[in-house]
Amino acid sequence: MKQTYIADVARQAGQEIVIKGWLYNARSSGKLMFLEIRDGSGIIQGVLSKKAVPETVWETAEKLTQESSIIVTGIPREHPKRPGVFELDIAAIELVAVAEPYPITPKDHGIEFLMDHRHLWLRSRRQHAILRVRHEIIRAVRDFFDSNGFILCDTPIFTPAACEGTTTLFEVDYFDDEKAYLTQSGQLYNEATAAAFGRTYCFGPTFRAEKSKTRRHLTEFWMVEPEVAYATLEDTMELAENFLSFIVQRVLENRREELAFLERDITKLEAIKAPFPRLHYDDAVKMLHQGFAEGKLEHKFEWGGDLGAPDETYISEHFDCPVMVHRYPAQVKAFYMEPDAERPELALGVDVLAPEGYGEIIGGGQRMMSLEKLRERIAEHNLPESAFDWYLDLRKYGTVPHAGFGMGIERCVTWICGIEHVRETIPFPRMLYRIRP
Amino acid sequence: MKQTYIADVARQAGQEIVIKGWLYNARSSGKLMFLEIRDGSGIIQGVLSKKAVPETVWETAEKLTQESSIIVTGIPREHPKRPGVFELDIAAIELVAVAEPYPITPKDHGIEFLMDHRHLWLRSRRQHAILRVRHEIIRAVRDFFDSNGFILCDTPIFTPAACEGTTTLFEVDYFDDEKAYLTQSGQLYNEATAAAFGRTYCFGPTFRAEKSKTRRHLTEFWMVEPEVAYATLEDTMELAENFLSFIVQRVLENRREELAFLERDITKLEAIKAPFPRLHYDDAVKMLHQGFAEGKLEHKFEWGGDLGAPDETYISEHFDCPVMVHRYPAQVKAFYMEPDAERPELALGVDVLAPEGYGEIIGGGQRMMSLEKLRERIAEHNLPESAFDWYLDLRKYGTVPHAGFGMGIERCVTWICGIEHVRETIPFPRMLYRIRP
Repeated sequence: MKQTYIADVARQAGQEIVIKGWLYNARSSGKLMFLEIRDGSGIIQGVLSKKAVPETVWETAEKLTQESSIIVTGIPREHPKRPGVFELDIAAIELVAVAEPYPITPKDHGIEFLMDHRHLWLRSRRQHAILRVRHEIIRAVRDFFDSNGFILCDTPIFTPAACEGTTTLFEVDYFDDEKAYLTQSGQLYNEATAAAFGRTYCFGPTFRAEKSKTRRHLTEFWMVEPEVAYATLEDTMELAENFLSFIVQRVLENRREELAFLERDITKLEAIKAPFPRLHYDDAVKMLHQGFAEGKLEHKFEWGGDLGAPDETYISEHFDCPVMVHRYPAQVKAFYMEPDAERPELALGVDVLAPEGYGEIIGGGQRMMSLEKLRERIAEHNLPESAFDWYLDLRKYGTVPHAGFGMGIERCVTWICGIEHVRETIPFPRMLYRIRP
Repeated sequence: MKQTYIADVARQAGQEIVIKGWLYNARSSGKLMFLEIRDGSGIIQGVLSKKAVPETVWETAEKLTQESSIIVTGIPREHPKRPGVFELDIAAIELVAVAEPYPITPKDHGIEFLMDHRHLWLRSRRQHAILRVRHEIIRAVRDFFDSNGFILCDTPIFTPAACEGTTTLFEVDYFDDEKAYLTQSGQLYNEATAAAFGRTYCFGPTFRAEKSKTRRHLTEFWMVEPEVAYATLEDTMELAENFLSFIVQRVLENRREELAFLERDITKLEAIKAPFPRLHYDDAVKMLHQGFAEGKLEHKFEWGGDLGAPDETYISEHFDCPVMVHRYPAQVKAFYMEPDAERPELALGVDVLAPEGYGEIIGGGQRMMSLEKLRERIAEHNLPESAFDWYLDLRKYGTVPHAGFGMGIERCVTWICGIEHVRETIPFPRMLYRIRP
């Protein structure tokens, strides 16, 4: 008989079905046995009555350990008091394999133990909820761009000679003693594809060799980066707010159950609707000064600096929506940012800070259009112009205003799930001291 | 006025619109000028009448070089003889930037020159057609799995100690003198996620440090790999044929124009419908022997070997659909393949060979279920068991039959586009001597 997935049992209520899965949990009253069975698509409670089944079926059930693989035949029946919840009246159990004593038990394991057993930890309800939200977010990201005229242009992972210094780059032995570096961002390449396709995005893993051991850092993380020709800072802020609203609404539509399991405060997500507040850097600084004056911030923020994590948290606490801080001092931003025409000491950049203290989830802005000014900046930053030959070409052959942003998927998942640490938002996280399993 | 994309002009026929793009081509009769304008979404012919426009507009148009960036105001009008084709009656042109003499001209450039200018070459019609097909294929891949109950589980790029020998692995300096290796396949990790989620897939860049300089090899390529718990070789063959049919049909639905531009023989693609022929390895060998006897193959194939490129081409020429060659000798396949219960010298593996000589595009099979046998295989292959601790865990805790496959996106794009070389199927290809731009 064909396998029925637990997620689909409602369609076959009252009919005999076969479920192929694993024992998640079991309890017995001596006459009745309750087997929680999981198959990856969901969990169903199987009910076994000693009187009703052949002795061999009962004996098989008694042998089962947690995570033993089983093929169960039975009839799904709606729970009398919980509409939409189904139980399975078990008629037969085929034992595929008895599991050895399972290392992850209901007791509290330390995080290192769980991370060492990530390949098994992924079977837990909590990890299922988080990774299903991740799946939904990624799908929403692609749907958003694909349905808005963007073309996916994957940018390369191997990049040549380090452009912005090698300190946070991973080096790879390429062929014949050549070195390659793992990408930190597809942006420079996106600028080329945006000039070709108008609206493009890349979406793939990126790498940072930062010796940071915080709850917000992975050495390998997925980033989506749209880029639009003929777009300004204002256009990219509008794109960012519509994009984030879309993602949050899609998760709310399709993953309520998972959010509920994670005890996420849904009202906080329901508030995420475009337009988002825009906050000029100057006003952000004023807000931080007031926070310091009121004793809510330890250090006095100096105009001209980049926001630190406590600053971001303090600012974002003033808003229910993500807040878009724009026009940072050029000196704290990348060399390729377009200066503000009215105040050239400011860069046309934006950081989007998630609410509830989750900090920056999007960074972007308008890129420099002028060949001459870009050359000056490259020189000012002591970068080798030869490494940027092709990038400068984009200004020689039909330069246009253009803008875009990048969003780290894992930080977005962390925020939307309302969890503590980025390490649970990717199946196999890579961190400073963690490349296993 | 808001920008209209060329792809959307039909909706605004007869109304004044603004197009923001680049000059693709121009010709003039002295009184009339025809400007081909591209904006990434498409190309439209703009018509400029010297009589009808102010002199300054005509003068601006005369200054334009190929790839100059321009903002054009005009009224789109359906071509009198070509329904669905629109021309633009130009009223005004704003010059954004004059382009320097464009290096890519209609003359025949060598491939190295084009690859050196990949960032500009991407603006050509041919590259647009190919990369739009790529976009469509990737979208179809995700839609197929997402709508069939699969959960996306991204597998890591950084992997620990080389499992299957380091000869084709790229080595990365991780932290504190530790080495990491770039993934060649997410499969082992997929087996863990399939045991957690039932049906999973990963889809990301993979890396092979092969010193191959063929039209089928990239050092960095994208691979999609589904894995299904409780699935057999037969199940995975069925999945593969449905998957490929779905992709081809979607490209035919949405990218006919691009296929036509590439002069793809559509009838060959229209024939791609599941079920696909299945060919036992033994029968493949017989076919190759006959080919040798008839003088169509240079070398006599020996039972027990893996198929070479000429063998694959010869076999695939017998079929209109991809052919699924299954049950290869275990000795030529990976250690983790489940042996055929009736003939243990054969592995339950399958290679899917694309028609028209495009060779293998999918490889997969059923994975070994037994802990004991897997340990034996690891020892036989002289692999360090410690590196497989977590992988062996999957057999200790609820092992089940499971199967899956991997498909390289670039080979699939090459085949569906009907083009010669894999290098055009990814925006910035990485090859033996190529990591720039």
